[in-house]
This record gives sequence, structure tokens and C-alpha cells, in this order.
Amino acid sequence: MNLRMIAYSVGRILTVIAATMLLPLFLSVYYKEGIAIAYLIPIIISVVIGTVVSLKAPKDKGLYVREGMVIVALGWILISLVGALPFYISGAIPSFIDCFFETVSGFTTTGSTILTDVETMNRSLLFWRSFTHWLGGMGVLVFTMAILSAKDTRTTYMMRAEMPGPVVGKLTSKWQFSIRILYMIYIALTVLETIFLLIGGMPLFDSIVHAFGTAGTGGFGIKNASIGYYDSAYIEYIVAIFMMMFGINFNIYYLFIIRKFSQVRGNDEIKWYLGVIAAATVIIMINIMPIYHTVANSLRYSFFQVTSIVTTTGYSTADFVQWPMLSQIILTLLMLMGGCAGSTGGGMKVIRVVILLKTAYHAVRKAASPRSVLSVKTDGKSVEDTVVRGVLAYFVVYMLFMGISILIVSLDNMDFATTVTSVISVTNNIGPGLSTVGPMGNYSSFSVLSKIVMSIDMLAGRLELYPILLLFSPRIWKRN
Amino acid sequence: MNLRMIAYSVGRILTVIAATMLLPLFLSVYYKEGIAIAYLIPIIISVVIGTVVSLKAPKDKGLYVREGMVIVALGWILISLVGALPFYISGAIPSFIDCFFETVSGFTTTGSTILTDVETMNRSLLFWRSFTHWLGGMGVLVFTMAILSAKDTRTTYMMRAEMPGPVVGKLTSKWQFSIRILYMIYIALTVLETIFLLIGGMPLFDSIVHAFGTAGTGGFGIKNASIGYYDSAYIEYIVAIFMMMFGINFNIYYLFIIRKFSQVRGNDEIKWYLGVIAAATVIIMINIMPIYHTVANSLRYSFFQVTSIVTTTGYSTADFVQWPMLSQIILTLLMLMGGCAGSTGGGMKVIRVVILLKTAYHAVRKAASPRSVLSVKTDGKSVEDTVVRGVLAYFVVYMLFMGISILIVSLDNMDFATTVTSVISVTNNIGPGLSTVGPMGNYSSFSVLSKIVMSIDMLAGRLELYPILLLFSPRIWKRN
Repeated sequence: MNLRMIAYSVGRILTVIAATMLLPLFLSVYYKEGIAIAYLIPIIISVVIGTVVSLKAPKDKGLYVREGMVIVALGWILISLVGALPFYISGAIPSFIDCFFETVSGFTTTGSTILTDVETMNRSLLFWRSFTHWLGGMGVLVFTMAILSAKDTRTTYMMRAEMPGPVVGKLTSKWQFSIRILYMIYIALTVLETIFLLIGGMPLFDSIVHAFGTAGTGGFGIKNASIGYYDSAYIEYIVAIFMMMFGINFNIYYLFIIRKFSQVRGNDEIKWYLGVIAAATVIIMINIMPIYHTVANSLRYSFFQVTSIVTTTGYSTADFVQWPMLSQIILTLLMLMGGCAGSTGGGMKVIRVVILLKTAYHAVRKAASPRSVLSVKTDGKSVEDTVVRGVLAYFVVYMLFMGISILIVSLDNMDFATTVTSVISVTNNIGPGLSTVGPMGNYSSFSVLSKIVMSIDMLAGRLELYPILLLFSPRIWKRN
Repeated sequence: MNLRMIAYSVGRILTVIAATMLLPLFLSVYYKEGIAIAYLIPIIISVVIGTVVSLKAPKDKGLYVREGMVIVALGWILISLVGALPFYISGAIPSFIDCFFETVSGFTTTGSTILTDVETMNRSLLFWRSFTHWLGGMGVLVFTMAILSAKDTRTTYMMRAEMPGPVVGKLTSKWQFSIRILYMIYIALTVLETIFLLIGGMPLFDSIVHAFGTAGTGGFGIKNASIGYYDSAYIEYIVAIFMMMFGINFNIYYLFIIRKFSQVRGNDEIKWYLGVIAAATVIIMINIMPIYHTVANSLRYSFFQVTSIVTTTGYSTADFVQWPMLSQIILTLLMLMGGCAGSTGGGMKVIRVVILLKTAYHAVRKAASPRSVLSVKTDGKSVEDTVVRGVLAYFVVYMLFMGISILIVSLDNMDFATTVTSVISVTNNIGPGLSTVGPMGNYSSFSVLSKIVMSIDMLAGRLELYPILLLFSPRIWKRN
């Protein structure tokens, strides 16, 4: 392990995060909240540690995959530790593990909260909380794309750890350029949503933080009733449509910009993604009609919740744990699927689910005709066998990982639905689950152990499992 | 499709099942229950239909895999339809779908019941109900072994459909001989358990039917409180130990008989099986200590329930839905694993879980060192890559299949735990689940649709998914 290079890289990440904290610091001063110190301390800590460890670039800049993974994993953990300090120092959240849980939930774009009353919190803290979503989403996106075209080993390997899917097309041949395009699309969509929300009568502050939460597919709100607070069909449709857009592979936007429409049409993942959203929306709409009486109302609540859950955002406009069980099961299954690869959404990713479905179909056919040769195809091309095998193995690791987490969380002796869906929700970076952790509930009543496990779940889910799992391997820490 | 050969084979199966119904018929006459007609009608139907379609052996006896699978699937469905008639004609179970569910549950060795009060049922019917477990278990075992050494294509392919695991060693080179050994072990163990239960003071009738339920790892009891009714630690330990024995690969007994102890020691599956039972027993014992106070009591209830669930039998001595959530989650995870390949147990099978665990471990290692070449080993030998791939695909099909079933069953609007664990329980041929379908509950309150879906789940789970899934494929029915 090139420990010096790991320290150097993590140090750089820390200084960047210190810079981002200047924004809530200014806000806090502007609103005269008197908690500037809560931002100054973590900023100073980050800058000092970050500068010290990254002062001298190491001679050997070579990095293997595992070192890239360690950097990403440690980076995400450290920024969560530092990012938790404002909540702790300001006294807004008394327990440090709760502060950490909340910040991990932010940076991993999960949106699960331990707050029982979010409306009493300082505005600058609410801003910081939602801003972590936006930064986390951007981090995931950048890493996604950067990996594909990087020339020097360091970036390549560091980035691979976060590639949110098995197949992400190449944007352009120069990765710096790709990242710039990516930033532009991400920022443009965020600004666009903010404007649309303002038009709908939402206050400026609210519009910005909700756009942050949508862009990162995070889901932290600033009202106890989430988006439901505004009780506006216009706002709900705007948020729903933007959630849906942030759950799409960002390649698609690039292809639109360069007018390669035929490639967009040939993309299987987006077809499945939109098809699943349409099907789930219609079924849930019919299922909840007895509660909301009209088609218009049922469609409004159904479409919002489906897009919110499938993109792993987690905003809500209704207490869906009161819905019929069919709707709840559909939402739970959507949690497992998640958004498209190359989006800010979490979960298994649509393309993985598509590959799993096709593999299952082939397995049944092969059972009937053992000698038939079948290959999984997406976008009209055969998927390499190693990719299929990788997706299958990922699915197994993912299910086992959730199984073990559920086992530990069950020590808290909550009901079955809470125990199972809380782990599903955090591992897939959704936010709410069913029962106690439903949209009107929160994660405050879990034990410290469960909160630690769920923080690990959120990080593992966000970083596609392996980087976090490797941290637990003694083998990885051997200097060699 | 060789439809004539399919009809011929299914016809033969029907006549065999008619013969087995003579036993409860005699019992019914002996006990003067006055329901002889309830057995006579299905016997006559089976013999007539069976004889007509199998009167003339078809010239073309060749069968492909898919035809073998269709025979097995149709055979299991038809014997369930015919086997359901005694319950229906006698009036013991008024609804035919309930009769069918109960009989499928019997032949698939599941043990889920729709009866709310089993103790009011006629003795001959109780005997028949438990006897279906014993016949089903024998059917699975025979098929398991027969496939390995058969010479003519018909047997080979027909049997492959039911091979309950990816790796079942070869017993002897002559399959008729293997089957005889298998029968002998199966019958000897059943008789042995009956004797041990008699020694414990259990009445003869009760001893026999409970031995049937244990042998098939079925779980139908004749008391509402299941084995808990007898309230005897001796009886509970006897049943638990025999359940554990019937969950072991029958090869192991053969190896014992021919004194190849080194091969037994080298078997990984049995080590994992016993290891998991030991670990789960200890953890649950500690977890339920506050309820049962003493180590002896906690061990007694824990060991019984762990062996009952992991072998997919489903007998109970305690209402485990009252246990802490950790214990309930452990039991739910054990349901998914099931017994060893080549046993009468259901579930995924231990060897598949072992291969999945090793694959997951390799996937994490490969993430760190992408160029490393790792192969999954069991019993000290590398597992062929096609087998590993097959196990991975099976896992995906299995999870998808349960997901779809849960979706349909959720239409009944039961609570989350009932909806999810009822499907897990029936698909893995366990019997009880959590909440409403816990050990003191039953499946009577589900809708007709759910009962049909669960019947399909039981059949699919018992026959390793593919034969039942193929029945739904239009492709399979093409004559060619």
C-alpha cells in the first residue's frame, strides 16, 4: 500500500471540503445565528490536517485499484466526520453519532434523518445539510465519468471505486473536459429546478435546498412534512420530474447536446427506467384510488412517490405506510432497483437489474435446452461474460451485505418491517422505509450500534460496496 | 415435445399414487369412519385415467430434458389434484382450493396448513396428510440419486428436474441399486424414529405420522400446538435430532455404511450445515434466555426450532413470533438456506449458499486485485465454472421468483411480515412464517389467488424452480 499517496489524496479532499463549508459559514453570519464557530472549527481542522498531510507530494504517485478504493472510502468517511462537526458544535444535534449519521446520510445522498423536528433547526445548518447532498451527488458523478478516460493511473483507479454501474459510456476522450460538461449539466439542472420552484411560489431558500436535495437524489427536506408541506400539485410535479431527470444516466444529456438522438433511442437502460416508472405509477395510482378518490389526486401522489423512491431521493408528499400493502411492496422493490448507472441515484442501478432479469430468463431457457448458447444483450450488443459474471457476484455480495446488516439491526428489537426496510433504505441511499422509518417517521430511536451499521450501509451502498468492504480486510493494510 | 411419452409417464405416476391411497382407505375402514368413498373415488379416477393413458407404451421413448421436466411438474400437480379429493369428498375441508393447497403442501413437504383446528379431523385423513409428506420426501430423494447413474435417457432427464442441488455424488454405478439403498436408509430412519418416539410415551399413531412428517421434512402435525403438545424434552430432542438427520445429504449415510469415513470428513457441506445449526442454536438460546430463564429450557426450544426451520420441516414447540426480532431474523435467514443437497430438505440448499458465500468473498478480493485468478473450492476441489455460474443464475431466478410472488400476495393487504415471510416459507417448503403465518397461525385467511400462487411457489421450490417455470413458457408446448 502506498500509504503516503493515500494520505496525500485524502488531505486534498479535506481541504476542498473546508472550502465548501465557507458557504454555510457566510449564511450563518448573514442570518446572525451566532454559530460561526461551529463552522470555523471544522474548517480550521480540515485545512490544517489537509495541508499537513498533502504539503509534499509523494515521489511515488502510483496507485493500485485497492489504494484508489481506500482513498475514496476514507475520503468519504473523513468528510462525514468533519462535516458532522457544525451540527455537534452548534448543539443542534446533541449526540455525535447522530451528527455523524446525519452527515453520512447527507454526503451519501441518502436522506435518512435522526431529527424528530427539522423545522427548529438554524437555516445555515439546514443549508449545510442539503448542500452535502449536492456535493455528494457531484462527487459520485465526477468519479463515474472520470474513470473512463483518465490517463494517469491515479485517477483511473481512484475513480473506478465509485463507478455506479457496470456500463457507463465514454463522454469524451479528455476527462477534464468530460468533468466540465458534467458539472455544467449538473449545475444547469439545479439552477433550472430552483427557478421552476420559485415560479411555483416556493421561497428562495426553500427552492435552493430542495433543488440540492433533488440533484443529489438525497431527499433531506426542511419541513417535517417534506415536500407535502407546500401542498401544491405544481411544485410536486416539478420536483418529481427533476428527480426523474437526475436518476437518468448523464451520458443521455450529453448525447442530446451533441444531437446523437439515435444513440439515445438505442439505450435500453432508459427504456426500462421509464417503463418501470410508468408501470409502477399506474399500478399504485389504481391501488390508492380508494384513499384519494380522484384519478388526478391518485396520479399526483403515486407519480411523486414512485419517482422519489426509484431515484432513491426519498422526498414524500404522503404517508405511504398508510397505503395498501401492494403499493408498499412495489415501493420496496423499487428501492432495490434504484436509478440509472451514471446518475446520482443509488440502489442496484437499472442496468444491473436488466442484466439480472435477462440472465434469469436465459437460465430458465437453458434448463430446457442445456446445450443452447445464449448471451445477454443490452443496447443491441452482447454484454461481455465477465461483466455478467461481475453483476451476478455484485448481486450476491449486495444481498449478503444487507442480510448481515439486518441481522445486527434486529438486535434493536424493532418490528420486522422496520428492521428489514430500514436496512434496505439506507443501503440503497433512499431515506424513508416502512413502519417506524416511514416518511413521517425517522431513525432517531435506533441504538448507537445500529446507527453505526447503517452509516456503514449508506457508505457501502453509495460507493458500490467494495471500497467499504475492503476497509475491513486485514490483507489490504499490509505495506508491500 | 413427445406428448405421448409425457402422457404415458404421468399415467404411471397416477397409478402408483392410487396404490398408496389404499393405506388410508384401510385405516378409514378400520376406524369405521364411514368415508371410504372419499378414497375410493380418487383411487378409481387415478387407476382409470392412469391405465388408459399408459396402456400402450409409445414407440418413441426418447425424452429431452424439457420433457422430463414437464413430466415431473405435471406429475406433482396431478397427484396433488387427486390427493386433494379425500379431503374434499369427505367434507373435511369444504373449499377445493384449500384441499389442493393442503395436498400440495403435503407432497412438496412444506407443511403450511389452511386448517384452523387440525384436531377435529378424521384419523385416516390425518394419516393421508402426513403420508403425502413421506411420499413426497421419498420422491425427491429417488429422483436426486437416480439422475446420476441412469443409462437410458428417459430416466436421466426426468430425474434431473428434481435434483435438489448442484453437486450430489454418485452412490453406486447401478441406479436401481442406489434407489434400493436409498429406500432402505429412508425407511430404516423412519422406523427408528417411530420406535424412539414410542419409547418416549407417544401413542403409536402419533409416532408414525410424526415420523412421516420428519422424514419428508414436511411438518404437518396432528395437534394444534404441533410437537409442543407433548411437552416432553425427550420427544423434542428425538424429533430435532431426526429432523437434523433427514436434512443431511443421504450420500453421507451410504459412505458411513461402506465405511468411507475419510470422504465424510472431507465433505464441506455437512461441516457448514452442522456449523450453522450450532451457531444459530447458541445465539438464539442466549437471545431467548430472558423468556425461558434456564439454559436447559432455552437450549431445548432454540435447538428444536433451529433444526426444524433449517431442515425446512416446520414443526414447532414454541410460538417463535413472540421471540426477540434477532431470533426471528435468524430463523428467516435459515429458511432461505434450507437443508443439504441430496436430502429431503428444501430451501436454497447449504452447498449453494456455500458457493454463493465463496463467490462473494472472491468478488471482494477481485475488486482489490482485478487480475487475480480465484476459483471456488468445495471438498478440496475446484468447482467447475459452469456450476458456479449456474448457482449464481439460480439465486437470481429464486429471488426474482419470490419477489413476483410477494407482489401478488401483497394484494391481500396483510401486514409486511406476513406478506414477505409467507412467500419465503412456502417457496422454501418450510411451513410456518412470521406474524399471521407464525407457528400458532395458519394460511386460511389468504385469498384464492394467493393460495394458487403459494401452491405454485411450493411446487416450484420443491422442484428447483425450472420445471414449474417451464410450464408457463409457450415455447415448451410446441410439438416438434
